[in-house]
Amino acid sequence: MGTDLSRLTPVEVRTMIRKGLIDTPTAGLCAGYAQGNLVMLPQELAWDFLLFCQRNPKSCPLLEVSDAGSRTFAFTAPGSDITTDLPKYRVYEDGICTGEYTAVTDIFEDYQLHKGKLVSFLIGCSFSFEAELLEAGIPVRQIEEGVNVPMYQTTIPCIPAGIFSGNMVVSMRPIPHSLVPAATAITAAMPRVHGAPVQIGYPEAIGIRDIENPDFGDRVTIKEGEVPVFWPCGVTPQAVVMNSRPPFVITHAPGHMFITDVKNVQLKY
Amino acid sequence: MGTDLSRLTPVEVRTMIRKGLIDTPTAGLCAGYAQGNLVMLPQELAWDFLLFCQRNPKSCPLLEVSDAGSRTFAFTAPGSDITTDLPKYRVYEDGICTGEYTAVTDIFEDYQLHKGKLVSFLIGCSFSFEAELLEAGIPVRQIEEGVNVPMYQTTIPCIPAGIFSGNMVVSMRPIPHSLVPAATAITAAMPRVHGAPVQIGYPEAIGIRDIENPDFGDRVTIKEGEVPVFWPCGVTPQAVVMNSRPPFVITHAPGHMFITDVKNVQLKY
Repeated sequence: MGTDLSRLTPVEVRTMIRKGLIDTPTAGLCAGYAQGNLVMLPQELAWDFLLFCQRNPKSCPLLEVSDAGSRTFAFTAPGSDITTDLPKYRVYEDGICTGEYTAVTDIFEDYQLHKGKLVSFLIGCSFSFEAELLEAGIPVRQIEEGVNVPMYQTTIPCIPAGIFSGNMVVSMRPIPHSLVPAATAITAAMPRVHGAPVQIGYPEAIGIRDIENPDFGDRVTIKEGEVPVFWPCGVTPQAVVMNSRPPFVITHAPGHMFITDVKNVQLKY
Repeated sequence: MGTDLSRLTPVEVRTMIRKGLIDTPTAGLCAGYAQGNLVMLPQELAWDFLLFCQRNPKSCPLLEVSDAGSRTFAFTAPGSDITTDLPKYRVYEDGICTGEYTAVTDIFEDYQLHKGKLVSFLIGCSFSFEAELLEAGIPVRQIEEGVNVPMYQTTIPCIPAGIFSGNMVVSMRPIPHSLVPAATAITAAMPRVHGAPVQIGYPEAIGIRDIENPDFGDRVTIKEGEVPVFWPCGVTPQAVVMNSRPPFVITHAPGHMFITDVKNVQLKY
């Protein structure tokens, strides 16, 4: 388009997405602003899920929870429309993906008309801390290699809440050993986007047997002198929700996040 | 009793409280362990309140939320009994305090038998960060003067959620100007117990007209060269709940907190 999308404001980019002008993954859009994972659930499941997130803040750091029936994230993105402002959505029925959409307005309205209210959860994402790592000169391998971050199922149990339970999913970034303290300190300062690592250097201690074969995402190169560092991952809440086979859920499609008006630096205080 | 209560473990102190051996305020008990404010609500109000806390984490930092109907904080204090392990409780009906009790087991069980389930919320308290301030040689005036911390209503609006809305209540500690940066940094590192100050030095900017007359607690001395520093206060959620005149609420009596097995240092990561 000849436009540097990283320089546009979140309002401008959400408007372009709403008009169908952007349908790509959102990594790199609106540099400096926080993006989030979307989980939209029927109201009758919302208590259990909010409690699950409260009990597992490292893997499920909430940036915002909508009012029941509302189509906007009123605090992190005033004026937004949750049903149009993400570039790609997935709809799940009874835990099975029944379609991918570039807008879900009709589906949302139809559900609310016939079945009940929906509640939208916005969960912090590692894009925010990766921007900080890069700023500090710490390599982020999956960005260098142009692939998805490798993610692994672990044996770390989440604290259950109501119908929701499961183990933590982690993402892995190989960090040169001399930069591990900095990478830990920088991410620890951002608890609203997953915070500090849960494991540094001992994948087998959290049940990861083959680091070359991630459960989600792509394999990345671990170079000589680099340590695999594992962070709680926003795929955890999605995996936990799907495990429970809920009748109806809408999420973002992988990598197609919701862009907020909140700057990453605001997540530090 | 000849026992140094600050040296006992939380389990030992909760057991003594349960047996009626301790009925005093809990400040100073179990040095190094986090204490919390209790708000116990009917299940039908729990969603609105959990959402309120999620939206206002500075004044309402949640340490734990019980399962509906449960009498224990299973994660921060395994084996605890919420209805006996605080030294003093208050019961409110339609927003009016109808009694103070040293245990509420019968009231709890009677309510659940006839009216419905209750949900207990444990909200972080400034005792945790005051211990850190003292450790760093920063004076905490109300402790020096043996009174309650001064608290003020502000004009800072909380983000509403359902039936709950209101302004933030803040606590004030006068800090020597040379120590204000340290006091800010130390408390900012503990977001689960209110975190950084919301105002330093300009009470009128948050609607406080007479610093000598706090709305709750006691006046303290502000010495030459000291700056009044204001932190979000755990009285906020209680004030907001009472504003809505809910049919039934149980809280701790002021200063008579719930003592957890969580060390203050664990609240930093």
